[in-house]
Amino acid sequence: MKQIEGGVTAAKGYTTAGTRAGIKKGKTNKDMAMIFSEKPAVTAGTFTKNLVKAAPVLWDKKVTDAGVAQAVVINTGIANACTGQAGYENAAETAKLAGEALNISSDTVLVASTGVIGFTLPMDVIADGVKKLSGMLKSDVQSAQDAAEAILTTDTHPKQIAYETTIGGKTVTFGAMCKGSGMIHPNMGTMLGFIMTDAAISKNLLDKALKGSIEDTFNMVSVDGDTSTNDTVLVMANGMAGNPEITEENEDYEAFKEALLAVNTYLAKQIAGDGEGASRLFEVQVKHAKDKQTAKVLAKSIITSNLTKCAIFGKDANWGRILCAMGYSGAQFDPLKVDIVMASEKGEIALVGNGVATAFDEEKAAEILSPDVVIAKVDVRDGDAEATAWGCDLTYDYVKINADYRS
Amino acid sequence: MKQIEGGVTAAKGYTTAGTRAGIKKGKTNKDMAMIFSEKPAVTAGTFTKNLVKAAPVLWDKKVTDAGVAQAVVINTGIANACTGQAGYENAAETAKLAGEALNISSDTVLVASTGVIGFTLPMDVIADGVKKLSGMLKSDVQSAQDAAEAILTTDTHPKQIAYETTIGGKTVTFGAMCKGSGMIHPNMGTMLGFIMTDAAISKNLLDKALKGSIEDTFNMVSVDGDTSTNDTVLVMANGMAGNPEITEENEDYEAFKEALLAVNTYLAKQIAGDGEGASRLFEVQVKHAKDKQTAKVLAKSIITSNLTKCAIFGKDANWGRILCAMGYSGAQFDPLKVDIVMASEKGEIALVGNGVATAFDEEKAAEILSPDVVIAKVDVRDGDAEATAWGCDLTYDYVKINADYRS
Repeated sequence: MKQIEGGVTAAKGYTTAGTRAGIKKGKTNKDMAMIFSEKPAVTAGTFTKNLVKAAPVLWDKKVTDAGVAQAVVINTGIANACTGQAGYENAAETAKLAGEALNISSDTVLVASTGVIGFTLPMDVIADGVKKLSGMLKSDVQSAQDAAEAILTTDTHPKQIAYETTIGGKTVTFGAMCKGSGMIHPNMGTMLGFIMTDAAISKNLLDKALKGSIEDTFNMVSVDGDTSTNDTVLVMANGMAGNPEITEENEDYEAFKEALLAVNTYLAKQIAGDGEGASRLFEVQVKHAKDKQTAKVLAKSIITSNLTKCAIFGKDANWGRILCAMGYSGAQFDPLKVDIVMASEKGEIALVGNGVATAFDEEKAAEILSPDVVIAKVDVRDGDAEATAWGCDLTYDYVKINADYRS
Repeated sequence: MKQIEGGVTAAKGYTTAGTRAGIKKGKTNKDMAMIFSEKPAVTAGTFTKNLVKAAPVLWDKKVTDAGVAQAVVINTGIANACTGQAGYENAAETAKLAGEALNISSDTVLVASTGVIGFTLPMDVIADGVKKLSGMLKSDVQSAQDAAEAILTTDTHPKQIAYETTIGGKTVTFGAMCKGSGMIHPNMGTMLGFIMTDAAISKNLLDKALKGSIEDTFNMVSVDGDTSTNDTVLVMANGMAGNPEITEENEDYEAFKEALLAVNTYLAKQIAGDGEGASRLFEVQVKHAKDKQTAKVLAKSIITSNLTKCAIFGKDANWGRILCAMGYSGAQFDPLKVDIVMASEKGEIALVGNGVATAFDEEKAAEILSPDVVIAKVDVRDGDAEATAWGCDLTYDYVKINADYRS
């Protein structure tokens, strides 16, 4: 398995485009993207567990349950959430417009929206955008870049990745892009993520591989504790790599899972590090928990703690907040067995041994907390399970961005 | 029942003092307080549910389980949390020093600490402080004010209240003070709170009244989602009002509960409105939920949402974030039945009807969101239960304070 250049069009048979349709007036950003697969693809999706689900989520659940898709239409600016029956009809209409433009069934068109909740999609703008995009579809690197840019909101940079692996003697490729930024505390996966592969795999195993991968990647990210109404991760597998279809949990399936996990881990970390206003990526590794669930709950509680996030912003080795966040997580552990080490490219420093402070050097600690990526290694010495979570610091800019998001 | 002047010494038989002992070098703030009851008082306490409990919490549990106390010693600057066995011994030593100075048993001395986690109390400073305070105890308004100031950390103002009611034909008084500010997301009560009454009441009913009152007051406050290791609310009832001891759930008990609820509601709102960096108090009223638990979960989820809190800071009527926070709370409701109204001294405005946006005037909404106290009224039209929660906005200053708390 190796990382290769490219994004959502890296795998065989996929084309894409990104453009400005003009969903929000007075801006200049690209705001619509389309992905197309030459052949119908086996498709799986994971969606927000928020009780309030946006219209495109409801539409996509129907499509992914049926299991086959050939295109995705994505818009930013307006989330098409809390828009009632009219919102659902707009999602369906978007699929219909794309189906007509691409000469495929609207039942195989996925739609995804991100932006402000509560507003209605301007369907005339969407219709023009769909028409324009369907004439621009290409498989080149620039088009993938355009699409990756077009799905961003307050993200500061596009997020895309491609991996190549060998399955059943054939080269199989995964290309993906995502957007994150705010309202990121997935209870599924998160945000919008699109993974396009040319692998041949059965619907059942694609579902299973996606679900398993999400648990350890997007579900271990938190930017602000808020779970969005629109969280969506879609995987399409069009079979064009020519590998024998993966229909059992054999070594081909393991290779598929490995590549999918690599893609999703990369994207999840990208989302955490580019959280709204974030100045650094904060990774938390919990080791030796009594079981996996405990390890995950502890890691996520630390990554979600506003006070810990502020300390990370301030390069302050305030380990008490980490231990405190573990304590209120609801997970069981013995506070007097906890060791905490902070690490980065500048080195490592032990802050806590057996639940109490070591005599650490504050200046050295501040230096280790300075780089763009900072890791807390927490050992609870209670078993063999481990988990990693990713988040970011809480900064002035997070407040600034979110105090005036709608304008 | 009526509010009267004064704080923790308003009820008969209580004296107090607050002073600077010098726990943290290079500062000038008062950092120690003492409360003394002329007679031993029936005593109840509620404490943090954080698995990581500070030493004073462990000590106070023992005292309140026994049920009688006569004094409280409070320090700020150092929380005496995550300090192991040595920390517990320091809590016990503080009680012993106070017991000797006041000529009472150390088993009737409560201790409370707030400040940085992980540091050891400077026991020489504490010993001097206890000695000094025990010679300063008075029942006047200024002493209560001094004590209320001495327990603050990043709070911007002291928080005290007194109420008078009639129980069993006698005037019964409640005097109280508290501190809040950060690490406020109580899973019990919160912060440090001290309620001194001259009522006569049995230990069982004092426990019950406190527990019930906490659920609807301190447990409905959130500043930042972080539950502290030191949260403590103590009530002492010394019986000096001369009312017949309350031993059953009769009208005297109801009057007692009513006054206690008024005290704790006032303090809880004070803590929310003075949350770290807060510019306004944000109250959320949930109505017509299917049961009390649902109403509480919804109200607390809204009050805890970072995105909603940023919108309140920005006077942005971003109701989608409110509905989103309800959706991920885990509570059951029908999003399509939700009405949301924002209210303040500037008036009311309906933002959402049946789960979708009304055609509201954004300028009018911004005006209503401008005052120091802003209320969201959420109707889920699913039953008869209601709940109120209190929080604050998320501001630049919260980040500033917490990025560099330890310095």
